[in-house]
Amino acid sequence: MNSIKEITIIGLGLLGGSMALALRKITGATVFGIDQNEHHSQKALQLGLVDKIITFDQLATSDLVVVAVPVNKIAELATEVLNTVHSNAIVFDTGSIKHSICSRLKNHPKREQFFAVHPIAGTEFSGPEAAIPDLFFGKKNIICEVELSRKDLKDKLLLLFDAIGLQTDFMNSAAHDRHIAYVSHLSHISSFMLGKTVMEIEKSEENIFNMAGSGFESTVRLAKSSPQTWTPIFIENKKAILKSLDEYIKNLTNFADLIANDNFEEIFKTMLKTNHIREVLNKKN
Amino acid sequence: MNSIKEITIIGLGLLGGSMALALRKITGATVFGIDQNEHHSQKALQLGLVDKIITFDQLATSDLVVVAVPVNKIAELATEVLNTVHSNAIVFDTGSIKHSICSRLKNHPKREQFFAVHPIAGTEFSGPEAAIPDLFFGKKNIICEVELSRKDLKDKLLLLFDAIGLQTDFMNSAAHDRHIAYVSHLSHISSFMLGKTVMEIEKSEENIFNMAGSGFESTVRLAKSSPQTWTPIFIENKKAILKSLDEYIKNLTNFADLIANDNFEEIFKTMLKTNHIREVLNKKN
Repeated sequence: MNSIKEITIIGLGLLGGSMALALRKITGATVFGIDQNEHHSQKALQLGLVDKIITFDQLATSDLVVVAVPVNKIAELATEVLNTVHSNAIVFDTGSIKHSICSRLKNHPKREQFFAVHPIAGTEFSGPEAAIPDLFFGKKNIICEVELSRKDLKDKLLLLFDAIGLQTDFMNSAAHDRHIAYVSHLSHISSFMLGKTVMEIEKSEENIFNMAGSGFESTVRLAKSSPQTWTPIFIENKKAILKSLDEYIKNLTNFADLIANDNFEEIFKTMLKTNHIREVLNKKN
Repeated sequence: MNSIKEITIIGLGLLGGSMALALRKITGATVFGIDQNEHHSQKALQLGLVDKIITFDQLATSDLVVVAVPVNKIAELATEVLNTVHSNAIVFDTGSIKHSICSRLKNHPKREQFFAVHPIAGTEFSGPEAAIPDLFFGKKNIICEVELSRKDLKDKLLLLFDAIGLQTDFMNSAAHDRHIAYVSHLSHISSFMLGKTVMEIEKSEENIFNMAGSGFESTVRLAKSSPQTWTPIFIENKKAILKSLDEYIKNLTNFADLIANDNFEEIFKTMLKTNHIREVLNKKN
């Protein structure tokens, strides 16, 4: 890894900050930071996530640049970064949607230095204070359209990902966005709307507080997530998310009908079949 | 507590089994078990949850009887138990709905020996194997219509609940069912339908397995819950649950519309407002 001497992280939140910590530990490189939010920059410096705050025109000496900003800013920023970096630098983003980013970078003259990455890791917290060095350990990682990137840079990057504990798979960007809409984005929306529904009704908050033990707390956990991160994701992956929401609402409506009709047998069968999720998730562990 | 020499637990699943362990530890009483499922009875005996399996006609010497069966069986069983126990015995149930149970027991000649209890504790696991001695520690507990119970028995029971770590509040049974529909039952349905929706689409399971890190796992946790327990709950608390589902579906539909219209500002504001759930839940800890 001794060819990585300087790393720049753009976007010093949960993902970017954690990448800073994890990558420095592995490479021993100097880590620079860029964030348009002055408070985040200072906090990241203070917490030791980065060694120095720099500006865009100082990127030319970086060997690795991580673009960890909200998904609607990634394509534009990555384009600027590619315009600036040297010819052996690696650039990757960490956005949780990939198709629009890949499309917009497809024809960049330095496309072969770019990697469209989605490390499937996160918590419900955000900002530099939320960064932790082992966020990526044991987590899945998806790289999209890897065939458009240079082989030597790919090998180098995969070694880095391996070293910080990420298990990398490859996927077409459209397929990635379609799958992730169901497995991640829909979970966030269902959780946010659950939180909203409960707070609208339980105006006193005392009842939420007293009764939250019964499963509510884990189901609503994602409703603590950052609107800054998630608003652009929902809009950028609109098509797949709307389809998943439509199916989800249909399933809820059908289940309500079964309850309304006291259809004990079908409610039971539906739940029993869905219990299979236990085995699906257990394979993971 | 030395007036509690014999305890009987009816229904040796997660709740009943955990009550057996917790109450024996506090009282030193002999704990008997009843379960119509022969496999559960044997398992509970083998795991040491209970000292002996008995039959209904042997209940007369019990000083405390816990009815921890599915909610649609509670009223009938509790009636039989009250018919059988001695005049200083305490009988309580652990069902997560309370109104229909309270209504059906209201005129029982021994109503004053009964307590309608909902310990807000549980996991996504079920059966005797899932029982743990500290399930109730630090958890909220609701008793409904406590004014119908004998004062001396109430004092004795509250001491027991205190000793196993439950923090008890009192509530009207109809209000309990209305609140719990939102805070617990709706969470279970949203989680089950999320699991169903994702499994219907992600037929290969490989993608769920690979991408489940992104929040899906915690949001879908409750979809592992027991259909035996939850089917009767959904039917018994139908009215409140259908109302909560209706509001939930409306919120999801509105949110889908905001996404369809690229309404960045309203999506952002809705999520930011819902983030308040963080403070509501933090009060708890």
